[in-house]
Amino acid sequence: MKLVTFSCRGHLSIGKIVGDQVVDLPASDASLPTTMLELLSGGATLMQRARDVNASKGVTYPLADVRLEAPVPNPSKFLAIGMNYAKHAAEARQLGVQVPDSQVWFNKQVSCVNGPFDPVHMPRVSDNLDYEAELGVVIGKRCRHVSAADARSVIAGYLVCNDVSVRDWQKRSATMTLGKSFNTTGPIGPWIVTDDEVADPHNLNLRMLVNGQVKQEVNTGEMVHNIYEQIAYLSTVMTLEPGDLLATGTPSGVGVAMSPPSWLKVGDVMRVEIDGIGHIENIVVAEPV
Amino acid sequence: MKLVTFSCRGHLSIGKIVGDQVVDLPASDASLPTTMLELLSGGATLMQRARDVNASKGVTYPLADVRLEAPVPNPSKFLAIGMNYAKHAAEARQLGVQVPDSQVWFNKQVSCVNGPFDPVHMPRVSDNLDYEAELGVVIGKRCRHVSAADARSVIAGYLVCNDVSVRDWQKRSATMTLGKSFNTTGPIGPWIVTDDEVADPHNLNLRMLVNGQVKQEVNTGEMVHNIYEQIAYLSTVMTLEPGDLLATGTPSGVGVAMSPPSWLKVGDVMRVEIDGIGHIENIVVAEPV
Repeated sequence: MKLVTFSCRGHLSIGKIVGDQVVDLPASDASLPTTMLELLSGGATLMQRARDVNASKGVTYPLADVRLEAPVPNPSKFLAIGMNYAKHAAEARQLGVQVPDSQVWFNKQVSCVNGPFDPVHMPRVSDNLDYEAELGVVIGKRCRHVSAADARSVIAGYLVCNDVSVRDWQKRSATMTLGKSFNTTGPIGPWIVTDDEVADPHNLNLRMLVNGQVKQEVNTGEMVHNIYEQIAYLSTVMTLEPGDLLATGTPSGVGVAMSPPSWLKVGDVMRVEIDGIGHIENIVVAEPV
Repeated sequence: MKLVTFSCRGHLSIGKIVGDQVVDLPASDASLPTTMLELLSGGATLMQRARDVNASKGVTYPLADVRLEAPVPNPSKFLAIGMNYAKHAAEARQLGVQVPDSQVWFNKQVSCVNGPFDPVHMPRVSDNLDYEAELGVVIGKRCRHVSAADARSVIAGYLVCNDVSVRDWQKRSATMTLGKSFNTTGPIGPWIVTDDEVADPHNLNLRMLVNGQVKQEVNTGEMVHNIYEQIAYLSTVMTLEPGDLLATGTPSGVGVAMSPPSWLKVGDVMRVEIDGIGHIENIVVAEPV
């Protein structure tokens, strides 16, 4: 199932994609909630009810007529792992970053979540804007102390993520988070592909294109710490909640590692594609006054 | 006004403290919301209505009969600044931490928020548990690009915070966040003292006592980056929301800086006091199985 948050004629709802249609879930079955967080929190029962909605009897819109929003507009957490592909870690080392053996996690503030096709702002205070193509994981179950062996059972699904980064602000502090959290720098989407439809999340081809040119390309099987290890590690520390977002790392090819660094410019179009998941596409615009 | 989130006889609500009574705000005025986030988001109008509730005509409980919860149980962000008192920064330098000129921000995950008098868990995976007494700021207004000169206008109020830290996990990664985010390691409270009742947030005496012994003591005027500069800096990057929590830094005297390091033990009682604000007190217990 491909789950979306969408708006259409001033109406915000959640739906599933069937062919080229969006089935409005709560409009088709009033026992279904109107937000993705509530749907995910409802667990297997609600999810099955969403699957059971019959598109031909439901309320549908042509996909082309709706605006796709960030599938989870308001997660309680948005965490991202750094330097999780070997070649990207090597790039970071060359830039003087210490790469420890353990997983390196930082926050993208939840206020930076952005839609799959919405503009990303070039900050007023920086021109060091850079891209990072990533596979995103959406947690589906409240959990703590989950073993890697059990981790797949707490995943709701996957989405495409661009961990847009403001490098000068990132470098000001080893904690990274401010450079990762400018408003609009967390585009995600276009939908959540539920886990049952992904044969192996560690065998997906992922790429970043800027203005049509391939800049990053990798198979998710090359992660240093795989998704299940990530969930085990995080849940040792904290309770994960339905809707929590994990950005699972970016491969080599980022602009900051070029010589000289290659920053995004206003008008550039970033497109992240993950085979079997989908794509998101975001143009860079000047931050509005 | 002192605003609380409290529970009493299975009923969760928000209130204000009047003498030794808690006035249940929504029970006394049905036009008031039942959660702190909604009250804060309602702005000056709702806040005035809360002030206007007449204790003698309202629904009240003896303070001694209620359980005080974290005043903001579910903020959208919980951010903390590192090394923001000169002597503490010197401690950190001695431990090999790089202290930059700019503000160093990290997240406490929102899932670590804990009540003002609730136990803090000694993690199963660590015995390097440490305390950090801090003044907490609660944002009262959605805002971006706020100047330091205007910053006070977006503050709802102040509370007492203990940025409990798991030092070995903190040191694993320069991003700090995991060592700052174990469940229960973010006790806050006991209430929000609204900004109008605090003459100068940069002239408050703050101290940490462990088992009655003073371990940290400072005046908030000694901050390196004051609260208004903090809000200006953060809001350059991101939109701040009502209920967002800022932990404004801890002074010297933390356990990790002792020689040898002095860790908290199960049974230890941490008490943070801020004159004119209040105190919180949390006992260390083993993480439940």
